[in-house]
Amino acid sequence: MADKKMVEAITSMEEDFAQWYTDVVKKAELCDYTSVKGCMVIKPAGYAIWELIQKELDARFKAVGVQNVYLPMFIPESLLDKEKDHVEGFAPEVAWVTQGGLNELPERLCVRPTSETLFCDFYKNDIHSYRDLPKVYNQWCSVVRWEKETRPFLRSREFLWQEGHTAHATAEESQERTLQMLNVYAKFLEEVLAIPAIKGQKTEKEKFAGAIATYTVEALMHDGKALQSGTSHNFGDGFAKAFGIQFADKDNTLKYVHQTSWGMTTRLIGALIMVHGDNEGLVIPPRVAPIQICIVPVMQKKEGVLDKAYELRDRLAKDFRVKVDDSDKTPGFKFAEAEMRGYPIRVEIGPKDIEAGKCVICRRDTREKTEVALEELETKAAEILETMQKEMLERARAHRDSHTYVAHNMEEFEQIFNEKSGFVKAMWCGCRECEDQIKEKLAVTSRCMPFEQEQIADTCVCCGKPAKKMVYWGRAY
Amino acid sequence: MADKKMVEAITSMEEDFAQWYTDVVKKAELCDYTSVKGCMVIKPAGYAIWELIQKELDARFKAVGVQNVYLPMFIPESLLDKEKDHVEGFAPEVAWVTQGGLNELPERLCVRPTSETLFCDFYKNDIHSYRDLPKVYNQWCSVVRWEKETRPFLRSREFLWQEGHTAHATAEESQERTLQMLNVYAKFLEEVLAIPAIKGQKTEKEKFAGAIATYTVEALMHDGKALQSGTSHNFGDGFAKAFGIQFADKDNTLKYVHQTSWGMTTRLIGALIMVHGDNEGLVIPPRVAPIQICIVPVMQKKEGVLDKAYELRDRLAKDFRVKVDDSDKTPGFKFAEAEMRGYPIRVEIGPKDIEAGKCVICRRDTREKTEVALEELETKAAEILETMQKEMLERARAHRDSHTYVAHNMEEFEQIFNEKSGFVKAMWCGCRECEDQIKEKLAVTSRCMPFEQEQIADTCVCCGKPAKKMVYWGRAY
Ligand SMILES: [Zn+2]
Ligand SMILES: [Zn+2]
Repeated sequence: MADKKMVEAITSMEEDFAQWYTDVVKKAELCDYTSVKGCMVIKPAGYAIWELIQKELDARFKAVGVQNVYLPMFIPESLLDKEKDHVEGFAPEVAWVTQGGLNELPERLCVRPTSETLFCDFYKNDIHSYRDLPKVYNQWCSVVRWEKETRPFLRSREFLWQEGHTAHATAEESQERTLQMLNVYAKFLEEVLAIPAIKGQKTEKEKFAGAIATYTVEALMHDGKALQSGTSHNFGDGFAKAFGIQFADKDNTLKYVHQTSWGMTTRLIGALIMVHGDNEGLVIPPRVAPIQICIVPVMQKKEGVLDKAYELRDRLAKDFRVKVDDSDKTPGFKFAEAEMRGYPIRVEIGPKDIEAGKCVICRRDTREKTEVALEELETKAAEILETMQKEMLERARAHRDSHTYVAHNMEEFEQIFNEKSGFVKAMWCGCRECEDQIKEKLAVTSRCMPFEQEQIADTCVCCGKPAKKMVYWGRAY
Repeated sequence: MADKKMVEAITSMEEDFAQWYTDVVKKAELCDYTSVKGCMVIKPAGYAIWELIQKELDARFKAVGVQNVYLPMFIPESLLDKEKDHVEGFAPEVAWVTQGGLNELPERLCVRPTSETLFCDFYKNDIHSYRDLPKVYNQWCSVVRWEKETRPFLRSREFLWQEGHTAHATAEESQERTLQMLNVYAKFLEEVLAIPAIKGQKTEKEKFAGAIATYTVEALMHDGKALQSGTSHNFGDGFAKAFGIQFADKDNTLKYVHQTSWGMTTRLIGALIMVHGDNEGLVIPPRVAPIQICIVPVMQKKEGVLDKAYELRDRLAKDFRVKVDDSDKTPGFKFAEAEMRGYPIRVEIGPKDIEAGKCVICRRDTREKTEVALEELETKAAEILETMQKEMLERARAHRDSHTYVAHNMEEFEQIFNEKSGFVKAMWCGCRECEDQIKEKLAVTSRCMPFEQEQIADTCVCCGKPAKKMVYWGRAY
């Protein structure tokens, strides 16, 4: 039964990308739906990827002075209400707790959709003097947003994330931290997830509720749609004023703090699937692959084969995350399953290989096979994993670049979005109206105003007025 | 200001243990109250301990085949209602979400107080054949119980924990897993937190709602009160029958699975404080100390002192978690603060020490000072940390043993609980009435029926009928 299910081919990307995604998520056993509408269960294979993402990202946070904390999951309504823009942005999509134990609550509590207001309330009591600054705190937790339509990893009513919240003595320092964390995200995406990112600023329309500026790292999926992969917000002193977070500065005057927040979520797993996956299934970058090497014994009933497989596992386990597939399935089935699950390296070893003192290594992304002498296995595996990590990034960058277009005017702009799928670079006057019009007409949004600006034209692609910024436009998840 | 607050002495344990606890929690900056009634914020110093607890415990879980997953935080009321004993136990203390976004929900959802019902719902869909068993899953998350009275770490409306949930083909296997995890907990308490634990079974009255048997690790705090530090439950096939979790066994018949669950929480931090702390503040066992060594430069303005302190830090950081206190406070203040925060080792280094090529090491628990040649610092620090970890456990065990009493009859029993504080070993007939009577009269509960039984008397300490079991009794947190 189980065997049958695995060897059934998944829908091909070219046929139906959305169905391909669902098939991969399901058959690689990353996550599943539950009886709780809009909420997922993240299964062992999916959660193990999240654990590696957490570990890598958390180490990078700690290297830049971030400390972890944990704040409550509930926000009293009066607290959520304190910052006007913020509450307007979030109130329509929160879940409300109205009863505790057997009693109606005197004030309803929302389940945190994000924790700016809680951190403000905490900082208000914890910050008194310039000596208490900066505060550079982060928490790993789950948040809830009452979405109507949900998709595994990409959009669900509850998801896992980290949210950093900082407080600083000056506007300069908070701006610096906002960009520092954006850079941490961009490097993490490239170095760990092998996903090249466009760094830039969100427009007024797309910025976070309550921020003075939102910065983003935008990635391009295999189907040419964009995925916002991490955001970093500068709040200035807006929240501080709403919550009264003041400190006595060195000059003995009371000043408001300046704040930032920044977050990445389990949707990164969705990004990883849609950037690297192929028609055989998942392809996991080696650095976040819970299993980096899967050893498949061939003719495992022959004497010595399984023993050899275990011996190789024990040797490799010193440097890599390894498993032996010693189930009673056929080698062909095991090969297909290893591909579906995205293990970077498959090692095949049978009686003839053992006799010849070698084995076969198959690399997941290129499916290239190499014969390797057993004594060179560790060296060769390390080499292949490193090459694979590097080439996955290069391939993703080449794909993104070849799906990034330039539009000088509305005609070109429409033509591209009608015929192709990808990022479109085009100039913008800075007016909300043009963004709205583009969105209505083409279901396209401004992804960001990239830090790397180019002067593609002098006029706005939409209204023809003088252009202020080059913008990356795209259809987004 | 900040300085003043630190050197203020904390309330002594002997004067008021509860106030001592609150003072330590507050002044060591482990956690604090929030505007959200009954919910805490876990601050960096507290959360860092939790991270080390997680890391150690999680590694021990993975060594016995546990896989991590993540399930939703909401439980639809109809799902919670499926197992009768379970819902009776938890329904009175849950928080209910009744609104999502702008709409009233068709069915109210409780915020998980524990996730047996969610795991059952998940397993029902995920388990079909004996090949799918066992499932040995765990999740790290927060849970909510609408407590009326709360205390930092010990009891709060939201707390962090891990909850393991397993499913097995046979009753023997689930019983085995229940005890295996209890042993993981007991070893973890002893080897990592330096807390000796009594292992035993809960009585019918004290067992978990829905379990056929609950096992516990009970620890004794410095004030002689007991703290339940971890529990492991065997559910038999009760939940499986309520939820219809069946599998096709090898003999081709449909059978119900047998299940377990087991959990440890952030109250372990409370246990650590109350077992090891003293009147100078916190004492953290080296294995979970976020800072193991704090270097305090003396006369730090003199040339070379701070440089030497940083040099030592860089050397020590290869093997230990280290910091330099280079703030502008006085050395005396820094010493007191290092003690308050419970850093296992304080290294003092000043101009004269540097000249003599030595430094002074002060051990937190004994406050013993040793002069150490700088070239021997790593070796000596490692030695001291190891000795300290070992002796903390020995001291805690000696304290527990000297506060464990034996009562042969009700007179002795009452006398002990009126005059002393600790565990009392006494015989029990097995009747609920005797437990109820003892609780009503002395506010004492049965902590467990220990695996190591002794025949203290032939009759029940309460009713005088023939005794079935020796029980550990105590007043509990
Ligand atoms: Zn325009
Ligand atoms: Zn009795």
